[in-house]
Amino acid sequence: MESGSLTAGEASQRLMARLIGDAAFLIEGVASPETATAHMACFVESPSYLTSFKTSSSECWLITPQIYENLDEGARSKKTFLLTEKPYHSFVELVNFFFPAIKAIAKKHPQAWIDPSAEVASSAQVEAFVSVGPRAKIGARVILHSGAWIGEGSIIGDDSIIYAGAKVYPNCMLGKRNVIHGGAVIGGDGFGFLPGSKGLVKIPQVGRAVLADDVEIGANSTVDRGTIGDTYIGQGTKVDNLVQIGHNCKIGKNCILCAFVGLSGNTTLGDNVLMAGQAATKGHLEIGSNVQVGGASGISKDIAPNQQVKGYPALPLKEFLKIQVLHTKLPEIYKRLMEVEKKLEEINK
Amino acid sequence: MESGSLTAGEASQRLMARLIGDAAFLIEGVASPETATAHMACFVESPSYLTSFKTSSSECWLITPQIYENLDEGARSKKTFLLTEKPYHSFVELVNFFFPAIKAIAKKHPQAWIDPSAEVASSAQVEAFVSVGPRAKIGARVILHSGAWIGEGSIIGDDSIIYAGAKVYPNCMLGKRNVIHGGAVIGGDGFGFLPGSKGLVKIPQVGRAVLADDVEIGANSTVDRGTIGDTYIGQGTKVDNLVQIGHNCKIGKNCILCAFVGLSGNTTLGDNVLMAGQAATKGHLEIGSNVQVGGASGISKDIAPNQQVKGYPALPLKEFLKIQVLHTKLPEIYKRLMEVEKKLEEINK
Amino acid sequence: MESGSLTAGEASQRLMARLIGDAAFLIEGVASPETATAHMACFVESPSYLTSFKTSSSECWLITPQIYENLDEGARSKKTFLLTEKPYHSFVELVNFFFPAIKAIAKKHPQAWIDPSAEVASSAQVEAFVSVGPRAKIGARVILHSGAWIGEGSIIGDDSIIYAGAKVYPNCMLGKRNVIHGGAVIGGDGFGFLPGSKGLVKIPQVGRAVLADDVEIGANSTVDRGTIGDTYIGQGTKVDNLVQIGHNCKIGKNCILCAFVGLSGNTTLGDNVLMAGQAATKGHLEIGSNVQVGGASGISKDIAPNQQVKGYPALPLKEFLKIQVLHTKLPEIYKRLMEVEKKLEEINK
Repeated sequence: MESGSLTAGEASQRLMARLIGDAAFLIEGVASPETATAHMACFVESPSYLTSFKTSSSECWLITPQIYENLDEGARSKKTFLLTEKPYHSFVELVNFFFPAIKAIAKKHPQAWIDPSAEVASSAQVEAFVSVGPRAKIGARVILHSGAWIGEGSIIGDDSIIYAGAKVYPNCMLGKRNVIHGGAVIGGDGFGFLPGSKGLVKIPQVGRAVLADDVEIGANSTVDRGTIGDTYIGQGTKVDNLVQIGHNCKIGKNCILCAFVGLSGNTTLGDNVLMAGQAATKGHLEIGSNVQVGGASGISKDIAPNQQVKGYPALPLKEFLKIQVLHTKLPEIYKRLMEVEKKLEEINK
Repeated sequence: MESGSLTAGEASQRLMARLIGDAAFLIEGVASPETATAHMACFVESPSYLTSFKTSSSECWLITPQIYENLDEGARSKKTFLLTEKPYHSFVELVNFFFPAIKAIAKKHPQAWIDPSAEVASSAQVEAFVSVGPRAKIGARVILHSGAWIGEGSIIGDDSIIYAGAKVYPNCMLGKRNVIHGGAVIGGDGFGFLPGSKGLVKIPQVGRAVLADDVEIGANSTVDRGTIGDTYIGQGTKVDNLVQIGHNCKIGKNCILCAFVGLSGNTTLGDNVLMAGQAATKGHLEIGSNVQVGGASGISKDIAPNQQVKGYPALPLKEFLKIQVLHTKLPEIYKRLMEVEKKLEEINK
Repeated sequence: MESGSLTAGEASQRLMARLIGDAAFLIEGVASPETATAHMACFVESPSYLTSFKTSSSECWLITPQIYENLDEGARSKKTFLLTEKPYHSFVELVNFFFPAIKAIAKKHPQAWIDPSAEVASSAQVEAFVSVGPRAKIGARVILHSGAWIGEGSIIGDDSIIYAGAKVYPNCMLGKRNVIHGGAVIGGDGFGFLPGSKGLVKIPQVGRAVLADDVEIGANSTVDRGTIGDTYIGQGTKVDNLVQIGHNCKIGKNCILCAFVGLSGNTTLGDNVLMAGQAATKGHLEIGSNVQVGGASGISKDIAPNQQVKGYPALPLKEFLKIQVLHTKLPEIYKRLMEVEKKLEEINK
């Protein structure tokens, strides 16, 4: 729910931004340039967005000093400006002002089920149809939305939010400030079978899924538990919707995994790894810190740190792009080859 | 549940089809040609399906006049025919006769939870373990299956069906006759983070997800809410299972998105766009009306209307197919290049 | 929960393995070589894992006689060995000893909802917030975890486990010993629409989803019901997370479908088919028994039995690999073509 308003002067103080214009100008909300009305704040972080700045109805702009300097008089005259080196960051602060984060209400819904042996913090909010299994521990100010399932012996760290219908299988461990979106499944069985005389034999999946602090998992994503030992997601890593993380993966800090990323079992990621949508790994391999993997790439062997890779199989980005251009040129290449052949034939005559 | 029967004469009237054969012939159901018994109706829409027509036990066929004309006497003699220009459409009408759509039963299950401030139509059906949040509005004849979650302030239009365990996050808006399948998540947070000094900073996701009338969303698909402003799905658009629609996407009318399609944030689709399975977009781009995107394509820039594209990156279909053939021919191309090199060497000697 | 311990002598008998070392050595658990302490059992199945054998703290190893024979005296001296032809299989048996499979507790949670017309075995375990619809049948020793939905008329075979929030739509049939993981949706509508004058017309989906015995379906996977007739998954087939199986697919026995596999409608698979991650089919085609499909492959026509294929479109594996190498060589090929053109020009001068 949007709430409140503040003056440009107050915003200037809150954001530590230099105000140019009327300190009494009332900011009533935040918006994208296309939909903003006069009193909604917008931002411009790069000159390429100046088009929408010019056509927008907003009269209040977060903007870098550099971009502001290059505005002509007309553009400057009708607006209130808040000058800041990082307009997007400042804008996010404003959004958080107008849409304050939801806080846990200390209550346990009568239609929830909490096993008597579970420990649920008194400050936690437990909604209807939530199941908290035996010996599970729910930290302070945790919100468990409707239909969340916390399996036997699992631990949810303080200030975490588990959205509707998310499932945490038994004996998993989530750190503080985790956000698990609707329908995500944490700690399901890894996918492992051995060929046997009567069909496939299931390899028992008896490890855990362990998420460090500040991890966010998107809607309907799946994080398998370890076969033996743990699947681990490092502090601050963010996972989009519909991502699959296989058993015994070890993921570093502050990684970003976009939608449909698939990590096969025993994939190791360093810190700050970015995997774009649909990128996947073969498993039993290691991707170094700061690697950026392009969309739909297939990683089949180790990637050293600090590289950009793309393709199937993944190559260094520059090499990939060169090959991609030539791939598109195949009709021309083929035609030129045929011409060469023809000329040779003529020579040989 | 299958129910009832009708005579070929009654079917002829109901489908406005020309009857050839016995008006008293009893149609007892519908089936595929392979599994049909004598009194089950089947259809042939194209001559390529005549093989199954000949081997099937069914004695009642929906068929085009053209195909009927070309049947020989023997093929005609033992069957009852219903002649119609669109046999598949007529068949669907018959299926709907034998399997009438389920209608809402006006009841609220005692084990559901409906917030006192929510407005639920008296004609709506609310099953066990459904949560309807504060100020949510549930329209007439809506069916909320077991475990569905309707977040605070969300609106579900008349005659919609929300299947088991589907989740509608707060402040979203669904039109009339929406069908949301099991486990789908509507209005989850978009995936947006800014690099900060202490790790990734979450960009608050405070917009809505808005679905127009007659939208269908498949099982376990995810539709993110807008960051600021709305994610929008136009009237009549159908979305398969396990599809991801990012924040602030704008989708036109009557689009078809097949399984594993991924739309990154701020993708715009015109009307009647078809995206085959695993096709994905980079985001911040526009695909024009009537575009058909082939399976597993990667869209990284705008696509003008009325085109067929395929590939990664996507190219006009004809170009893609030409390149694909040459790609498969690479071993031959390489061999011919080596031969050319050899001949040149000989000449130079 | 890990439990119990056994001596190396007892393990030798249980696993029918030849013991070398102290029969009284106490095995207190199982572990991976990296995390094992002295009394945790590990295994070596191939010589390539001897590195972790050498660095591990474990003093108890399941090993093949062949690998054991090639160990030097030093390596042999400090360990207890259990010699077996299939160390991984034996290890799985040990895991099952230390982590016995969870058994159903005959109870019906008071916060579950079971329709009076449903038949639930007295030995079944029904957790909180489970819905069992009218005329559904739940077999002996079945476990229905929290929030599972068993639709009207569906049947769950003996000894099956339905995890939290899994959904079985009405009139589906699951065999014995099925395992359905959290959030999986069995029997949702197939994705079929016809173009009509007022938009897309839904093709009613009135068939069933039928799973034979010993099928396992991963978290958040979706198995659509048949349009008319059944979708069928054969005995012993294992399906990973986030897999989509379209309407009217027929899957044989003991197949393995990895994460993000997508089978379009009317795909037929023989027995023992392996589809690696992200592989997909166009539908209305057949893949023969024992076929192995590589990751991210696109199958657009029938594949004869006993082949390995890969690529988009899929080719025989050897051909695919040859083409892939040449694809990577495109810059070199292009350079050589230019050189050839240059030489020809010189000759023509």
